[in-house]
Amino acid sequence: MTRTLRVGAAQLGPIQRSDDRASVVSRLIVLLREAADAGCDLVAYPELALTTFFPRWFVDDITEADHWYETAMPNEHTQPLFDEARRLGVGFCLGYALLDRDGGTENRWNVQSLVDRDGSIVGTFRKVHIPGHEAHEPDRPFQHAERYYFEPSPLGFGVWEAFGGRIGMMICNDRRWPESYREMGLQDVELILCGYNTPLHYAPDPSQDVLQGFHNALVAQSGAYQNGTFVVVVAKGGVEEGVDSLSDTLVVAPSGEILARSSTSGDELVVADCDLDWCRQYRDTLFDMHRYRRPEVYTRLTSQRGPQLD
Amino acid sequence: MTRTLRVGAAQLGPIQRSDDRASVVSRLIVLLREAADAGCDLVAYPELALTTFFPRWFVDDITEADHWYETAMPNEHTQPLFDEARRLGVGFCLGYALLDRDGGTENRWNVQSLVDRDGSIVGTFRKVHIPGHEAHEPDRPFQHAERYYFEPSPLGFGVWEAFGGRIGMMICNDRRWPESYREMGLQDVELILCGYNTPLHYAPDPSQDVLQGFHNALVAQSGAYQNGTFVVVVAKGGVEEGVDSLSDTLVVAPSGEILARSSTSGDELVVADCDLDWCRQYRDTLFDMHRYRRPEVYTRLTSQRGPQLD
Repeated sequence: MTRTLRVGAAQLGPIQRSDDRASVVSRLIVLLREAADAGCDLVAYPELALTTFFPRWFVDDITEADHWYETAMPNEHTQPLFDEARRLGVGFCLGYALLDRDGGTENRWNVQSLVDRDGSIVGTFRKVHIPGHEAHEPDRPFQHAERYYFEPSPLGFGVWEAFGGRIGMMICNDRRWPESYREMGLQDVELILCGYNTPLHYAPDPSQDVLQGFHNALVAQSGAYQNGTFVVVVAKGGVEEGVDSLSDTLVVAPSGEILARSSTSGDELVVADCDLDWCRQYRDTLFDMHRYRRPEVYTRLTSQRGPQLD
Repeated sequence: MTRTLRVGAAQLGPIQRSDDRASVVSRLIVLLREAADAGCDLVAYPELALTTFFPRWFVDDITEADHWYETAMPNEHTQPLFDEARRLGVGFCLGYALLDRDGGTENRWNVQSLVDRDGSIVGTFRKVHIPGHEAHEPDRPFQHAERYYFEPSPLGFGVWEAFGGRIGMMICNDRRWPESYREMGLQDVELILCGYNTPLHYAPDPSQDVLQGFHNALVAQSGAYQNGTFVVVVAKGGVEEGVDSLSDTLVVAPSGEILARSSTSGDELVVADCDLDWCRQYRDTLFDMHRYRRPEVYTRLTSQRGPQLD
């Protein structure tokens, strides 16, 4: 029995502030149909795939930003995407901002939902590592105020049984932290889906600007290899509201090799066949964690947040 | 005040079974002098730099292998290296097998000692992640019985203040595990020295053979980037007792970029200037661990050795 999933990584070009959700969902559906024609089982969209990357602007009253968040999923805007997925029998993973009013509180999350071929939600992941800053920093050419707009997940990383395999999710900055992959590796993940928005300019250290593409590939490839899992990183790239962002969508094998990669900075479907049994070639040999890992001497990983000198 | 260390990564070509320690130490001294002429502060030698990689042979009685281990450091064979280092005012890091008879027990360790400019030992690190197998596997073309010959360190990863910086050590297979770098990152490491012996043929999964060089660079570069530290990986390469081994010695910057690299499979000194203040460009921004790490949701890292399904 083959366990090969055909994955479509659905890169998006920019979404401008003036683009309404209907126009964006139309673009998502075009890519979904292209994926269905290509025989894909599953389509992965970027982080915050329904709106522009609004954390680039600061507002003093956060409720002025409420219109960037979804309050339910699916909803009136995204229902056509869910309907078309069910009609085509293709699953998808969608990133969006969620304003959660359940339980009498208001929580703002940066999430990805994994949706099965029948249009039902398998699971929703909340971003763990929120980058950027909490307060307005007017000296920046643009803001990256994710820590103002989103709470960090209290739940960490999960893995869901779906599409005949074990699927994990992470979002954007999560991919830079080896702990993200390992937490999922310790749940026997086989395929990690990760949407991202990565401006090319990093204000706190502009020496990193020219390295954005290198760093994106480096962390995805090493995370895949060190955990014996496929990793798909999907960009929303191009020039969005004047901010140029990385457009390097990758499908990475458990060997760390790049199987497929985008070649434009616009809407583009990148297709790759992922034989999930490939994972075992690493996890049953060099990276047999039960045999080789040494958690008894990893005490700092969880007892410390940052560096401490003894 | 500059904190630039000039590091010499002293790659070795093969050491055959018949090569005695005196001849090997002579080669180490040649490289040490070349490093002194080049203005190096510190020289990093490979793993098991005094002998051939003896875990490729199995012996039923382990005491028959005792002659491959040092029982003290320095000793009569290595004293000339220590003397020359002191004379030149150049430090070094040396990998060797240690048979430790202190305390009435016999322990066999795969170690690296860091030696200061005055010839005194700053610290000795014991390998944490012992790869390979415990028992004789006669179907292999050669053995990799490190788990027979060495105990895993009960101590984990340390960082030593030396050479004006914070120096960590790891050995060979340790470099494939992200936990190794992170344990040192959480001690504010600035330079990690890692010797290795990596046969090109990996018997449990030969599909990895052609990827040995890619994987070596991938883990060193991602470990450096994700922890904002220099990483030096030093090979004993070439064809040793018929076994071809990777000869890719690298000096990697905190950006993940390769600063210098060997170009032969023999004895070769690779020199690079390591400005330790470069580390702060990553650790004070994108990888400010105190601000961004989330150990409260990394519970599996230390509560589990290998994958568990809930």
